[in-house]
Amino acid sequence: MSLQSWLASAQGDTDFPIQNLPCGVFDDGRGARMGVAIGDMILDVGAVDHGLDPALFAAPAWNAVMAAGPAVWAALRARLTDLLSDPAHRAMVAPHLVPQAGARLLMPFAVAEYTDFYAGKNHAVNVGTMFRGAENALPPNWLSIPIGYNGRASSVVVSGTPVTRPWGQVKGPDEALPRLAPSARFDLELEMGAIVGQPSQGMVSVAEADEMIFGYVLLNDWSARDIQAWEYQPLGPFQAKATATTISPWIVMKAALEPFRVATPARERPLLPYLREPGPMLYDIGLTVSLAPGGKAETVIARTNYREMYYSAAQQLAHHTTSGCAMRVGDLLGSGTISGTAKDARGSLLELSWGGKEPLTLETGETRSFLQDGDTLVLRGAAQGAGYRIGFGDCAGQVLPAIELPGWAKE
Amino acid sequence: MSLQSWLASAQGDTDFPIQNLPCGVFDDGRGARMGVAIGDMILDVGAVDHGLDPALFAAPAWNAVMAAGPAVWAALRARLTDLLSDPAHRAMVAPHLVPQAGARLLMPFAVAEYTDFYAGKNHAVNVGTMFRGAENALPPNWLSIPIGYNGRASSVVVSGTPVTRPWGQVKGPDEALPRLAPSARFDLELEMGAIVGQPSQGMVSVAEADEMIFGYVLLNDWSARDIQAWEYQPLGPFQAKATATTISPWIVMKAALEPFRVATPARERPLLPYLREPGPMLYDIGLTVSLAPGGKAETVIARTNYREMYYSAAQQLAHHTTSGCAMRVGDLLGSGTISGTAKDARGSLLELSWGGKEPLTLETGETRSFLQDGDTLVLRGAAQGAGYRIGFGDCAGQVLPAIELPGWAKE
Repeated sequence: MSLQSWLASAQGDTDFPIQNLPCGVFDDGRGARMGVAIGDMILDVGAVDHGLDPALFAAPAWNAVMAAGPAVWAALRARLTDLLSDPAHRAMVAPHLVPQAGARLLMPFAVAEYTDFYAGKNHAVNVGTMFRGAENALPPNWLSIPIGYNGRASSVVVSGTPVTRPWGQVKGPDEALPRLAPSARFDLELEMGAIVGQPSQGMVSVAEADEMIFGYVLLNDWSARDIQAWEYQPLGPFQAKATATTISPWIVMKAALEPFRVATPARERPLLPYLREPGPMLYDIGLTVSLAPGGKAETVIARTNYREMYYSAAQQLAHHTTSGCAMRVGDLLGSGTISGTAKDARGSLLELSWGGKEPLTLETGETRSFLQDGDTLVLRGAAQGAGYRIGFGDCAGQVLPAIELPGWAKE
Repeated sequence: MSLQSWLASAQGDTDFPIQNLPCGVFDDGRGARMGVAIGDMILDVGAVDHGLDPALFAAPAWNAVMAAGPAVWAALRARLTDLLSDPAHRAMVAPHLVPQAGARLLMPFAVAEYTDFYAGKNHAVNVGTMFRGAENALPPNWLSIPIGYNGRASSVVVSGTPVTRPWGQVKGPDEALPRLAPSARFDLELEMGAIVGQPSQGMVSVAEADEMIFGYVLLNDWSARDIQAWEYQPLGPFQAKATATTISPWIVMKAALEPFRVATPARERPLLPYLREPGPMLYDIGLTVSLAPGGKAETVIARTNYREMYYSAAQQLAHHTTSGCAMRVGDLLGSGTISGTAKDARGSLLELSWGGKEPLTLETGETRSFLQDGDTLVLRGAAQGAGYRIGFGDCAGQVLPAIELPGWAKE
């Protein structure tokens, strides 16, 4: 029998068995603290006898623990595993368990900088086909570089935060001049986020990059396709991606994902040596996207898997350092949209509705090309082990109507 | 007679008269502290009777003062003007003056996020002509949007920090596959940086944006043109701009620049209302770029002026918020390369040597298309008032040879 917690709700059908122990920040009305999810509870980790420097748990954010390095990550994980599995500790630990149902989950860490990649090949081919035709779908550099751009760290929010439909400059193909308008093609992007837990100065190898990663979250990179189409040449997406990026409330530590490592696919073009992987660096994590129109039942609109990526987070991070770019504790790397090959395995509405030409039909009977006001998007993900499941918690957000335009912005 | 300091070196030929009072961080061997330049000295501002909350001067960074808001900026400036002009304060203030010659200048503030724009029209036309031909020089959106992309805050360094030539993926037009190589087209970009001193959440007007700006620095956005050429489609510059961005050690507060406000040029295409300026938002600041081969005399290779910009920092900041993007204290906005119309008024070697086709001849007799190892670049800038000059201090950096490639990155 695999390892079990003495907490009944951590056994059986849960995203948070003792094998997971993901890291979050919660507030149960008594202030924001660092917590670890176990079953339907949260362990107030700073309050138990964790055996580590209390300063690591002083701020309601996991940055200090990350900065302390892999030996501390392992020590904390070993200690929590002991506390939550050995019934001898139950009386000491139980007073520090807080019901998830009564707690609000906050941003689990302070984002230093946010980089978003474009490393899913099916997504890149789909988008490229729509924008440039099937012949030129993949840019010439795509098979050699994990293409990325710097995103906006101030836009990263935790699951549950409402997302207000953005205004932006848009210009239709038949319009002479742009207009300021609420995005009419507001979309999601299903991604995983890797969190850099150790700093670097100068070039790092893929193996070193993998060791720098503290853990992973689910990530929805909300995207305004119409704003992007008008603004992105020649310097890339800017305001189209700056409204919000939602992450799951729980960081699953890399250690919890070790049993699920899988290799990136065979290379269609040889990689330069600095990008070659010394071992499997992706993870077998099943992912779904659900859409619920305001107040109505949700429909699963996409099912895919993190293993569909062409480049791993370790490869992305290694590439990120080639120029000498310093990486910092709390840097967040978005994987890029994760799409499988099947039509219902696409990680964005842009792809699912093929640019709006093939609207989806939801279980409510409504159709969607892009997001409507009131829609709630939920990303879910889990790695399935032998008798247990490693989940991330819902990565959710509801679309609110665009703000009323201030007077100075009107014609 | 205009206002004068009782400090003789603050009178006459200096970048730092009493009208300037720029903000920096220095270390004279007794620890890093916040300072204000005056003549050839630095006032240890936290140590004098400034009349403000001492917590504002606790960290060696100007972020806390910025966060305190425009009323505090004005109060500090008024108090320092009084202390340094009225001889009655001399005995009290003089012990807190430190010679600039004996102090090391450090990063004046913690960069929250760094955004770089592309808002100089002559530069955009020059680069566009080289890359896309004269017919398509300006992208279709350029006259409507202050085009920008997110840069890498961790790459921002203070003047004097050496800059190591980056490695990166490059591919020549006749090569089938890319190589990892030290950049052979390493370049500067002459820019001004605007520092956001107040946060915002949601859309702000150009007038509000102007009020959020604390001050300005000189900024050199080091750029690897060969890395950029291969990587930048479709998502913009990434590693090409991540090696270093050098800023001047002194932040000139907006208040010191008020007498030098000038308007942006006439619009060639009407702007949307949210980008219209309620008054002059640029500044008349003369700028030069000098290049000194290792150990040799410097040559001024470019002379231009900040007033050459098509969009002001206030317009850029207003545009930055259209999507709802939150701005934070310490955000740094690069203006984009500042080029005049004359051939020797171009703010990058890419333009000065016309992509390497017309190498520059330096006063040493050497020629340059792009930067060579050992070259020191110095940006200088000043606004010329009636009997005084507002300067920023040198914005300098020397190019060091590329690092030796680690074994794992070799073929």
